[in-house]
Amino acid sequence: MIGSFDFDRKEALEFHKKAKGKVQTIPTVNIRNEHQLGIAYVPGCVIACDEIKHNPSLVYEYTGKANRIAEVSNGHEVLGMGDVGPEASIPMLEGKALLLKLFGDVNAIPMAINAPTADEIINFCRMIAPTVGAINIEDIGSPDTFHVVRRLTETLDIPVFCDDQQGSAVIILSAVKNSIRLLDISLPESRIVVMGAGAAGIASTDLLLKAGAHDIIILDEGGILGPSHPGMDNVQAGIAEKTNPRGVRGGLDEAIAGADILVGLSRGNTVSKGHIKKMNKKPVVLALALSNPEISHVDAVNAGAFIYASGNVHDDNAMLNIHAFPGIVRGALDVRAKKLTDSMLLAASDALANMIDRRNLTPDHICPKFFGSETTPRVAEAVGQAAISDGVAFLTIPEGRIYQDTWHRLFGDIEHI
Amino acid sequence: MIGSFDFDRKEALEFHKKAKGKVQTIPTVNIRNEHQLGIAYVPGCVIACDEIKHNPSLVYEYTGKANRIAEVSNGHEVLGMGDVGPEASIPMLEGKALLLKLFGDVNAIPMAINAPTADEIINFCRMIAPTVGAINIEDIGSPDTFHVVRRLTETLDIPVFCDDQQGSAVIILSAVKNSIRLLDISLPESRIVVMGAGAAGIASTDLLLKAGAHDIIILDEGGILGPSHPGMDNVQAGIAEKTNPRGVRGGLDEAIAGADILVGLSRGNTVSKGHIKKMNKKPVVLALALSNPEISHVDAVNAGAFIYASGNVHDDNAMLNIHAFPGIVRGALDVRAKKLTDSMLLAASDALANMIDRRNLTPDHICPKFFGSETTPRVAEAVGQAAISDGVAFLTIPEGRIYQDTWHRLFGDIEHI
Repeated sequence: MIGSFDFDRKEALEFHKKAKGKVQTIPTVNIRNEHQLGIAYVPGCVIACDEIKHNPSLVYEYTGKANRIAEVSNGHEVLGMGDVGPEASIPMLEGKALLLKLFGDVNAIPMAINAPTADEIINFCRMIAPTVGAINIEDIGSPDTFHVVRRLTETLDIPVFCDDQQGSAVIILSAVKNSIRLLDISLPESRIVVMGAGAAGIASTDLLLKAGAHDIIILDEGGILGPSHPGMDNVQAGIAEKTNPRGVRGGLDEAIAGADILVGLSRGNTVSKGHIKKMNKKPVVLALALSNPEISHVDAVNAGAFIYASGNVHDDNAMLNIHAFPGIVRGALDVRAKKLTDSMLLAASDALANMIDRRNLTPDHICPKFFGSETTPRVAEAVGQAAISDGVAFLTIPEGRIYQDTWHRLFGDIEHI
Repeated sequence: MIGSFDFDRKEALEFHKKAKGKVQTIPTVNIRNEHQLGIAYVPGCVIACDEIKHNPSLVYEYTGKANRIAEVSNGHEVLGMGDVGPEASIPMLEGKALLLKLFGDVNAIPMAINAPTADEIINFCRMIAPTVGAINIEDIGSPDTFHVVRRLTETLDIPVFCDDQQGSAVIILSAVKNSIRLLDISLPESRIVVMGAGAAGIASTDLLLKAGAHDIIILDEGGILGPSHPGMDNVQAGIAEKTNPRGVRGGLDEAIAGADILVGLSRGNTVSKGHIKKMNKKPVVLALALSNPEISHVDAVNAGAFIYASGNVHDDNAMLNIHAFPGIVRGALDVRAKKLTDSMLLAASDALANMIDRRNLTPDHICPKFFGSETTPRVAEAVGQAAISDGVAFLTIPEGRIYQDTWHRLFGDIEHI
């Protein structure tokens, strides 16, 4: 048993041995005779090379760039394990590549790189950019992840993002939106505590603010981010300035008093029943620590939690990045967005929240179901249209078309069902 | 019509548009429920990450590294087109990736990189090395290609090679070996002229010397490499010292007098009937210029050529790199070679030459047939065993096993045919 899963360490390793990378490269065309060799390789490919040489944007027509993304990590901060190095980050990158194909029909290439510093990661991404339609940075740790994404977004003409940041932020904002509908309060009225000041905590706080939240307190093991917090990095200092409008001082005990929503992005087992009891009258507990949640479902409910969600796929409210990133990438690629903007993330978040019809919205159902076939198509449509509205899309695609195309990619021709 | 192919420019472009990259990423496992998600992604992949963190060599067991190679180019010298840049090199890299899968069952990842200098290419390759089992450098031009391969071979623990160098050299040596059998002379007795002093010319000359040839003259547009040649780079100067033992001066007219074998690696249409007539009594003409051969088959035969071969797939003697590189890569990966040694290349060349039984060896049949199903398995077996003998293989595999496994990979279970 691993967490709530009915497999053990041995089975997981045997699975990985048999899976041989979880993704492989497969031809889209066959070669059975000299004619086919000539057209697919020399001299046929020389003609495509020549066209692209004279008109670089044709690389999107004559190569796989348009649907290929790089999954880049240096393994510095892998899934709560700390610095494991590039080799040991490959199973995670390959897992992400598998999910991106199965849930988004994107060709994602695992690239675990020997690049210890942010500058080296940036240098690598600049070099590989011509080959791919987007770059997803994975598990490189904060604040590097913010510097890398910002600097590459400034210089490259393809979207560069980090699922730890943007993917998490979209999922959390969508769960918060559905929670406040059930609380019957607005986002500006809500009090939110974000526990954890790494990539996900900072990016989620930032997106919550952009969506209209005012009263957010963000903290980590060193206490509430702000002037009295020791050793903040510059990204943490930046978010500290935008949060904690009531000037609360201290740690979780002080932050959580009267809060409507707790967003847990810490290490596990960090929240007690007592903490939940200090919250407002209908506590919303999003306990997202990866291996073990901040507080168990049972304990949270016993302490009075009104809504409980976790990252556990078996939970009623399972908050899974898999709901967000395949659709975000699909939508960005489909309109050939040059970057990922806040309004694209806000649109993704709205699309996800709206997956649940108001009539069906209950405290035990604030997140879309895993394997819901609508998820990626709806998120992709929202993200693509937001990119077009924002002026960052190279292609203009009629409304509804990205949804249809994505559905078709994933499930075949809808008209024939 | 493109060269000798019955397709035109429009058809080649339409093919590339439909082929969408010629390779794609495909799952090796499916995810249909929460259990499968858990084992393939979090938390299952975390267990594989953890194992590799503690024992880095397990990356070959639990990820796709063992069968994944990087196809790297900066587009500086693409198939006779000169510097086209990274984007325009992608169709060529994707074509190579397609061939490596179809003919070698290798997962090859196109990586067209924005890296104008040899140092930047080296830096990129060092960064991506943890993810792949080998690196093939493509079309970066000479002398960079030699510096890059040498410096990376010194520092990385995976094979780094360049098909333009090693692949071409293996094919040429194998054709030379079968030619001299028909001439009934030995390699040390033969006089060879190599026309073209780029990656393929220099690497082929080097391998011919290592195989036992003595009398080789190498030349380019500036004449015979040697003290009187203007503007040689340091790699050309190095090969000049080992060649031209008779101290011939001048250009092709002087070099070709009395030669047994002409290896053409120049731009097309550079050899006349008069040149062929100056050769020894049974001229062997390997006219390998890519778009148009140095001299046509008809002209060469009319001028007295005994053997004629070209890079044209429709020729009787079609000298195609596709006969060499899939088997070289397959063999090197199968024994987990840490580098590609001369004896591995010599073994590949022998295996290729021996594809044609002495009884079947005729002037019109010195090269294996395209689509011969024996080619990759035999080359892989020879390369793998040579690596083991050379002490550069991490795995020891019984004789015959790589042949069998490769056949099985490419054609299914031989016992059931």
